[in-house]
Amino acid sequence: MLVRKNILKIKPYIPGKPIEEVQRELGLKEVVKLASNENSLGPSPRAVSYIKKNLKNLNRYPDSTAFYLKQKLAKDLKVKPANLITGNGSDEIITLALKAFVNEGEEVIIGDTTFLIYKIASQVANAKVTIVPMSNFRYDLETMRKRITNKTKMIFIANPDNPTGTYVARNEVSRFMKGIPKSLIVFFDEAYYEFGRQKKDFPDTMKYLNRGNVIISRTFSKAYGLSGLRVGYGLSTPEVIGYMDRVREPFNVNILAQGAALAALDDKQFLKRTLSNTKKGKEFLYKEFDKLGFEYVPSATNFILVDLRRDCKKVFKKMLSSGVIVRDMKAWGLDTYIRVTVGTERENKKFITALRRIL
Amino acid sequence: MLVRKNILKIKPYIPGKPIEEVQRELGLKEVVKLASNENSLGPSPRAVSYIKKNLKNLNRYPDSTAFYLKQKLAKDLKVKPANLITGNGSDEIITLALKAFVNEGEEVIIGDTTFLIYKIASQVANAKVTIVPMSNFRYDLETMRKRITNKTKMIFIANPDNPTGTYVARNEVSRFMKGIPKSLIVFFDEAYYEFGRQKKDFPDTMKYLNRGNVIISRTFSKAYGLSGLRVGYGLSTPEVIGYMDRVREPFNVNILAQGAALAALDDKQFLKRTLSNTKKGKEFLYKEFDKLGFEYVPSATNFILVDLRRDCKKVFKKMLSSGVIVRDMKAWGLDTYIRVTVGTERENKKFITALRRIL
Repeated sequence: MLVRKNILKIKPYIPGKPIEEVQRELGLKEVVKLASNENSLGPSPRAVSYIKKNLKNLNRYPDSTAFYLKQKLAKDLKVKPANLITGNGSDEIITLALKAFVNEGEEVIIGDTTFLIYKIASQVANAKVTIVPMSNFRYDLETMRKRITNKTKMIFIANPDNPTGTYVARNEVSRFMKGIPKSLIVFFDEAYYEFGRQKKDFPDTMKYLNRGNVIISRTFSKAYGLSGLRVGYGLSTPEVIGYMDRVREPFNVNILAQGAALAALDDKQFLKRTLSNTKKGKEFLYKEFDKLGFEYVPSATNFILVDLRRDCKKVFKKMLSSGVIVRDMKAWGLDTYIRVTVGTERENKKFITALRRIL
Repeated sequence: MLVRKNILKIKPYIPGKPIEEVQRELGLKEVVKLASNENSLGPSPRAVSYIKKNLKNLNRYPDSTAFYLKQKLAKDLKVKPANLITGNGSDEIITLALKAFVNEGEEVIIGDTTFLIYKIASQVANAKVTIVPMSNFRYDLETMRKRITNKTKMIFIANPDNPTGTYVARNEVSRFMKGIPKSLIVFFDEAYYEFGRQKKDFPDTMKYLNRGNVIISRTFSKAYGLSGLRVGYGLSTPEVIGYMDRVREPFNVNILAQGAALAALDDKQFLKRTLSNTKKGKEFLYKEFDKLGFEYVPSATNFILVDLRRDCKKVFKKMLSSGVIVRDMKAWGLDTYIRVTVGTERENKKFITALRRIL
């Protein structure tokens, strides 16, 4: 057979529908996208301003080492640049970790209501995937730890989690880490870190870095509003980072993403506005769901998982024709749930209006 | 062992030194980079103009399917969008092909004086690499074909080749393709296609596409001047593309790259200027090398491989301190060769002046 084995087992990732696509397909003018946990306030203005001034050198390859971005991150995070690797979004950090550490047939442990890319990327890496049920939409670290075998090479923990919006607390992580052998990697995906750390008991996973078997990934796609540019980073020991660097394509992070991310790190005001808009938006949506009698999962992120008690595919389609894109949870087996990103005040209202009309 | 097997065998790719790095390290103000076969005229102006007008939506994920870019490419190339896949540079098309088709331990056939990424990416994919010597700096397709075994899964052919600048002609490819079994993929890397096709006997590899075991990759990094943005594409049958799509990360090509590439395809004037500048620059450099008595390899690309008959590492360093970055060919075992990208008239003169000073 021409194609590699196990390829046909892979169920491709279905992204949130792009605004342009919905406009094109349904002939709608105004479309609100609350489907991909993007920053509803737009990109960081400092990042945009950086790009405007730096368009002359697009003919040059990006710096393979992301020198300046890593310098800045290292300073902000109080680590060395050698503790850092940058990726084409933090999606790529996941892929690089799998490529660097997991041999064909080795096991990867994953939650059941979590970011779908862990499973897909593990299958691409020819790993065996062990799915552990979550408990009340929360990671069950205790059970995950019990599922470790001598074949286990990686455990993925999304903290906070997507699509549930829940997080595992400091004491849970602390207990979990005590039972983890050095023969496997614990991968903390902290894509929603900036939102999560608003919780007092959110864990500081960086204190586990020097164990040599912990990788943390973070991204500029969410709180910094740069999903379109594709830039994220990984944190670990220089040794672990060195292995990941060996399997990285040399020019994986584009030149504008590197500069824009650097600028966004200094955009404290934008981050503040983002956190405040998210907080207010969540309060508004919680209240509206309460009024409508829908149960939701309290969220440590910029999105909410809510049970509408009706076929989520149908809700998705009806919302779409009202010009509101949400994410139905069919792919996670949550057949009556949708996930809605917190938007601007106007977007949140449009969403609620559309929802009320459907019911 | 924590790390995956064979990782330590991988010899990382060493990119051309970035301008900023040389400025930083040597305290130089004006630095000319002729090290990475970038477009010396800058990026396509239409691409830059597109970006300026499209900075509002950087908070949105890029279109996973690159709908508009594929539509446009399909129209220009007279294929269907289903024949196309886009990548984070054409580097990624190489990686996706390996991931989709090559099982651990299967063989990949590669030339010895060619793009280093084939070997590195094949090692990352846990493939066995068979290196076939080139003949007088040209791909020896006849010998490559003879090295096929029942374990061979892919053959890489850079056409035109980098770092030699040579190409394989229509009749050579035609003869080669006659002996190729359907059980392996022939990968034509046409990163320098727009330059190569200026040669009358440059092959039209697209006519082999419907065999179902041919992949062609091309890029916006060279003739279109968009190296910094990272965008390239692959061409094959819908079936082959479908397999590659299954191992692709969903948001691999950033939002600005997609739009800029689309704009660049319509920038006929820029392409014309690029080809004309390259032609003139090569003529100038050939003449200068002749005067200096240095042998060079006639090039179908925007760079020249030249034998300076002295330690290329030393030449590289001396050129660097004169503010000219070239590529020494040590990594290819060509210890007295450098590769120089054709620059602007001014850059070419600066290079020759620096070279003369060294001798």
